[in-house]
Amino acid sequence: MSVPLGVEEIADRIRTMQIRGAGEIARAAAQGLVIAATESKATSVQNFVSDLEGAAQALLHTRPTAVSLPNAIRFIMHRMKSFAQKTVDVESIRAFTISTGQSFINSSKMAKEVIGEIGARRIRDGDVLLTHCNSSATTSIFISAAKMGKRIRVFATETRPLYQGHLTVKELTDAGIDVTVIVDSAVRHVMHEVDRVVVGADAVAANGAVVNKIGTSLIALAAHEASVRFFVAAETFKFSPETLIGGLVEIEERSPTELVDEEFLKA
Amino acid sequence: MSVPLGVEEIADRIRTMQIRGAGEIARAAAQGLVIAATESKATSVQNFVSDLEGAAQALLHTRPTAVSLPNAIRFIMHRMKSFAQKTVDVESIRAFTISTGQSFINSSKMAKEVIGEIGARRIRDGDVLLTHCNSSATTSIFISAAKMGKRIRVFATETRPLYQGHLTVKELTDAGIDVTVIVDSAVRHVMHEVDRVVVGADAVAANGAVVNKIGTSLIALAAHEASVRFFVAAETFKFSPETLIGGLVEIEERSPTELVDEEFLKA
Amino acid sequence: MSVPLGVEEIADRIRTMQIRGAGEIARAAAQGLVIAATESKATSVQNFVSDLEGAAQALLHTRPTAVSLPNAIRFIMHRMKSFAQKTVDVESIRAFTISTGQSFINSSKMAKEVIGEIGARRIRDGDVLLTHCNSSATTSIFISAAKMGKRIRVFATETRPLYQGHLTVKELTDAGIDVTVIVDSAVRHVMHEVDRVVVGADAVAANGAVVNKIGTSLIALAAHEASVRFFVAAETFKFSPETLIGGLVEIEERSPTELVDEEFLKA
Amino acid sequence: MSVPLGVEEIADRIRTMQIRGAGEIARAAAQGLVIAATESKATSVQNFVSDLEGAAQALLHTRPTAVSLPNAIRFIMHRMKSFAQKTVDVESIRAFTISTGQSFINSSKMAKEVIGEIGARRIRDGDVLLTHCNSSATTSIFISAAKMGKRIRVFATETRPLYQGHLTVKELTDAGIDVTVIVDSAVRHVMHEVDRVVVGADAVAANGAVVNKIGTSLIALAAHEASVRFFVAAETFKFSPETLIGGLVEIEERSPTELVDEEFLKA
Amino acid sequence: MSVPLGVEEIADRIRTMQIRGAGEIARAAAQGLVIAATESKATSVQNFVSDLEGAAQALLHTRPTAVSLPNAIRFIMHRMKSFAQKTVDVESIRAFTISTGQSFINSSKMAKEVIGEIGARRIRDGDVLLTHCNSSATTSIFISAAKMGKRIRVFATETRPLYQGHLTVKELTDAGIDVTVIVDSAVRHVMHEVDRVVVGADAVAANGAVVNKIGTSLIALAAHEASVRFFVAAETFKFSPETLIGGLVEIEERSPTELVDEEFLKA
Amino acid sequence: MSVPLGVEEIADRIRTMQIRGAGEIARAAAQGLVIAATESKATSVQNFVSDLEGAAQALLHTRPTAVSLPNAIRFIMHRMKSFAQKTVDVESIRAFTISTGQSFINSSKMAKEVIGEIGARRIRDGDVLLTHCNSSATTSIFISAAKMGKRIRVFATETRPLYQGHLTVKELTDAGIDVTVIVDSAVRHVMHEVDRVVVGADAVAANGAVVNKIGTSLIALAAHEASVRFFVAAETFKFSPETLIGGLVEIEERSPTELVDEEFLKA
Repeated sequence: MSVPLGVEEIADRIRTMQIRGAGEIARAAAQGLVIAATESKATSVQNFVSDLEGAAQALLHTRPTAVSLPNAIRFIMHRMKSFAQKTVDVESIRAFTISTGQSFINSSKMAKEVIGEIGARRIRDGDVLLTHCNSSATTSIFISAAKMGKRIRVFATETRPLYQGHLTVKELTDAGIDVTVIVDSAVRHVMHEVDRVVVGADAVAANGAVVNKIGTSLIALAAHEASVRFFVAAETFKFSPETLIGGLVEIEERSPTELVDEEFLKA
Repeated sequence: MSVPLGVEEIADRIRTMQIRGAGEIARAAAQGLVIAATESKATSVQNFVSDLEGAAQALLHTRPTAVSLPNAIRFIMHRMKSFAQKTVDVESIRAFTISTGQSFINSSKMAKEVIGEIGARRIRDGDVLLTHCNSSATTSIFISAAKMGKRIRVFATETRPLYQGHLTVKELTDAGIDVTVIVDSAVRHVMHEVDRVVVGADAVAANGAVVNKIGTSLIALAAHEASVRFFVAAETFKFSPETLIGGLVEIEERSPTELVDEEFLKA
Repeated sequence: MSVPLGVEEIADRIRTMQIRGAGEIARAAAQGLVIAATESKATSVQNFVSDLEGAAQALLHTRPTAVSLPNAIRFIMHRMKSFAQKTVDVESIRAFTISTGQSFINSSKMAKEVIGEIGARRIRDGDVLLTHCNSSATTSIFISAAKMGKRIRVFATETRPLYQGHLTVKELTDAGIDVTVIVDSAVRHVMHEVDRVVVGADAVAANGAVVNKIGTSLIALAAHEASVRFFVAAETFKFSPETLIGGLVEIEERSPTELVDEEFLKA
Repeated sequence: MSVPLGVEEIADRIRTMQIRGAGEIARAAAQGLVIAATESKATSVQNFVSDLEGAAQALLHTRPTAVSLPNAIRFIMHRMKSFAQKTVDVESIRAFTISTGQSFINSSKMAKEVIGEIGARRIRDGDVLLTHCNSSATTSIFISAAKMGKRIRVFATETRPLYQGHLTVKELTDAGIDVTVIVDSAVRHVMHEVDRVVVGADAVAANGAVVNKIGTSLIALAAHEASVRFFVAAETFKFSPETLIGGLVEIEERSPTELVDEEFLKA
Repeated sequence: MSVPLGVEEIADRIRTMQIRGAGEIARAAAQGLVIAATESKATSVQNFVSDLEGAAQALLHTRPTAVSLPNAIRFIMHRMKSFAQKTVDVESIRAFTISTGQSFINSSKMAKEVIGEIGARRIRDGDVLLTHCNSSATTSIFISAAKMGKRIRVFATETRPLYQGHLTVKELTDAGIDVTVIVDSAVRHVMHEVDRVVVGADAVAANGAVVNKIGTSLIALAAHEASVRFFVAAETFKFSPETLIGGLVEIEERSPTELVDEEFLKA
Repeated sequence: MSVPLGVEEIADRIRTMQIRGAGEIARAAAQGLVIAATESKATSVQNFVSDLEGAAQALLHTRPTAVSLPNAIRFIMHRMKSFAQKTVDVESIRAFTISTGQSFINSSKMAKEVIGEIGARRIRDGDVLLTHCNSSATTSIFISAAKMGKRIRVFATETRPLYQGHLTVKELTDAGIDVTVIVDSAVRHVMHEVDRVVVGADAVAANGAVVNKIGTSLIALAAHEASVRFFVAAETFKFSPETLIGGLVEIEERSPTELVDEEFLKA
């Protein structure tokens, strides 16, 4: 048993963050398993399963906290192992695994559009919306709503420290949507004009708790106070199954230099 | 009646923001009236009052929205006019006015220290504190508390868009206080560790409402949710008397280029 | 394919509101499909399905916003179409469809009694209750509770503008229950005496949101403030399946003359 | 000592509600004391005080719960009795009492305009306002704001059972203000569009509690939930001094026939 | 049909509270049914079912309000009756029933450990915890967390009137955990230091409502105010199925002498 | 200058808690100053003031945290020193001081009755009341209300750890009032039946904050949730003037043996 080169390459690119974003990572991991299935030299179903498990491990260790990565692998491995109970034919299980992986990749790609369509139905003509950070599911909703002919206006927080809000502004402006960027702390000041808040998610826990970019819960608090509806737009692969048995979603802490420069820290 | 050169110079320096900060402006205005009183050539009390009114008008028009400016002038003019009812001697009223102006200047200078001392009594040894923007009354409280031997830790928001939080960090670090700078939207994330929030004020209305830097009310909301005490440290010259008769405190709107650069706006 | 006369007659009576009330409409629609099944001249299962679809369309277009109407039709059509996959015998599917329709009608009739019985268990002897508008599920609960020997007292809002509260008063008085009618705005005034609020529903959304007569959410707010339990009594055909994919429940706006007379509007 | 005919006539007209409204009643009572002062045949200050006390009693007993009536009488009697300590001249105290009464009447008449002017400063151009019942202080604010050139829109509740909201609609429409009448229970439905709520008061207690038309506290609750500012517009003679020593403001209960007709009650 | 002696003995010991605690009672009842199955002299499946129903009735009547008792019996009887549909062999159903009963007993014994393990994952190193009364599921969580090496500190209410908190203190102290006992009313005073509250349950209703020792809801209120997470640790046999059809969970009222002595009551 | 024996005796009895309760302590301190004034051998006003200051110091040091003690002394000393500015006659200032001290003692004795009378006006016939601990101002209100003929029912918490609630029960039972003692944690369970909560105070801070027996804030929270009015009954000598300049009210921590016995602590 050895991990094919194509899988290792994908693992490397996830590890070095050349592949980023929950959806991209999930699809790359699925592609890795498709490669492993295609290239497996196993002559028994048992060895095939072994080969795939090796590939899965290699992929899993690249980004310990990303929730979409184990979800993609779990999705394919679980189906493949169930199938392994019912066959002794390596070609059958290879074909099944490849098809399952490709099907995951396709439905993952469609998720953004489906969320856009469903979410846009909750937007009314004339709505003023607020979002935080840069969420592809959220911008998909806004763009879908605009395409349905609904006239909307969006407040986008700049989202310190990395200013992902500027990406949101660009994507929405390109789609012809009226966007205003605000400092993160201006949220309550504009909330009385806002009809709905829509944000993305990094992970969703078993009790419905949402983990997302710093500042999201503060916006939720301000929305709650003002009775403004608050929507979270997320693909199902954001669900964190460990939370079912009490696990907590790990929250990433990043370098202080994202906030202040080295000089400031030395002072 | 003419406005002395010294008064005009002060008026100019306020107008061009060489003199800034609520306390500095108030003291400069008081100094302007002291100059006007000293240099008045009036030979009757009535003319003296006229001269002072001219100076007051010149000073008032420099910064229409600063609340400490009219408060300083009102403080001196009201006392001078009451005194004018009781005397016919120009030298008496001149002396009284000069002394009243100097007394205002002195007590204004002391206000920061007094606030520091009173406020520091509300800080307990071991407290974790949070502040927003850069308020001299607030840092005075933290520094007083530290001088009393209370070990405190401070979270300072960076305060977008102008990063006044970095000034706060510098002032407190210089005083040997442990400070952590956070992005503005991290307020709720750290609130569960915070014992007290202390902020300054731009103006205080008759109903107790406080006007302060954007983001203050969002922090107040998060503190309220977490039952964390919230203190506002402000000199009495921050009071806005127009609010007694229904007036609203004007809130300054500033240039979009404080947030994004010109290029971004054109795009 | 043509729609039988009996179906058209039912569709007309729904359209002209001779048949009204969510339950009555649902049962009439089911009866319409029973008639269509009975009278279908189809000689193949495929044509039978076609005939039923024609009848379903005719019924659906009578009242676009009533949620019980499409629910009744969807209930029968879905079962009929599943059955169509498994048979080639027209008489079998005719019998199956008629029986399904009659079964829907019967269980719909029983729903009110079942709700009455379940709900009455949540009422305690001596409870003071409050309701709004005129909901048959709610009055069923109150009457069941009274029959169980529980002594209850009911506040019924008059429910402007159409005074449906007077119907509630009449139904409960006839059942020997002590009822007091109050103006709609007196709700908070009596809430401190109330043990439970029970109201009906026009529609229930996928997220649990309830759509009901204007004023319901205001009563819910007052009950929430006073920690008074708030129950919604509704049949399952009030569920709005469109909300599963983001659809909003349409809210009917009615004529201003329900509020003021024509003269007032002209003034 | 006897009560002059003019005083008795005023007392009668208050008792039979020919004179109504807190302001009208207060001014009529003051006028009654002016008459009593004018017509007193007393030859000593002591007897003059006695005559005025007789008149005050006659006036006080006409409407036991109206708070403006005892306030007007207390205002004049208190000043008159203080003056009585310092004089032995009947003509002096007569003149003083008449002048005090007239001054009360004048400032009471001006109160509505002053409230209008102060309150209108809290209204911004473009504000959507909501009011309940018919309060002359409130309509004065709206009309003042409109005269200042502020474009406002008003929601007026119809105010069951006596529909005083229709009076409000008429007064505001006559002043060219855009008004929409809503049923009382629609308050929460429109609250998300409302910028400020303004209502009048029947009485104000020592702890700041406000007594007003049924439904006011429900509107306050909905405004509070939606963070909408809520203003109470009231003259100072609405203050209830008994509340200083623990007294509760009596709340009037009126006939059930204001709600339903006699027939309904018999059923 | 007669109830075996072993069953009657268990029933007696439950009735006289020699067997107490939800888990103990549930397991004893299951054991009773195992005995009844073992000793049944039935020669037909129908008679075997009859024998078991007799034993079930005898056990059910011992403690009318304990929710774990009917749940244990329902668990076994339901499976046994389903099996009875599929067999005519008495020995088969006897073996099946015994095995089902033993399996219930085993998984019930393991529930406490499983809850401990899952719950401990929600505890972080350094957490300050608060509990009320004495719940074996809760102490299991705390002890598991301590075994995982997490340093925790626990506040335990004394839990008047029967001081079950002292048992909690003892169990946790024995496990080397730092515990502080507080009076029940000190809960809000310490809540600002608490990270998580964990309590047990007597019963869980269909709507998620939890019934537990007096004082639990007050602690929940204080935790909610302070945004402190609140966990309920309970085995699935605490679920009250009657609540699905509107039933209310009966709450036991106990003797006043648990609070004050007889003398006090006579006074 | 020396402190008279009578003063030292009073100081001793306060220190050893033979004199306890805020009112008793305040009156004893006033009596101490009356003795000091009576027995002063001073021949100048200056020496008389010195003697009184010595006595005041001796009394102040007996119980550092009781707020009524310094308030009583401050009340008399402030008036005495003002008087000292205006006289050179020792006998005059002696008489003035004695009379001021006696007047304090008398009005302090009357405070309880006055509070009872004012507070009882806020109680309505039929009210259900709740109190905590044993407050003489509170029981005075309940007894006054009962004497006015109002039928009231009182819930008294037992008030762990020292069971002062039993004293409250006894005082109210003796006055013929219906009292039910509850465990402290049952407060929320009975709150839905309660109309008003009345408690005493140990100290009142400048911002209106009340310091009282552990558990008071938890009751306030439960009352607030249920919209039940909450009254604090306290004499003015409970005011803590240090809080005006930022001082915090010291809260007494007492021995763990009030909660558990020595054995428990050793275990």
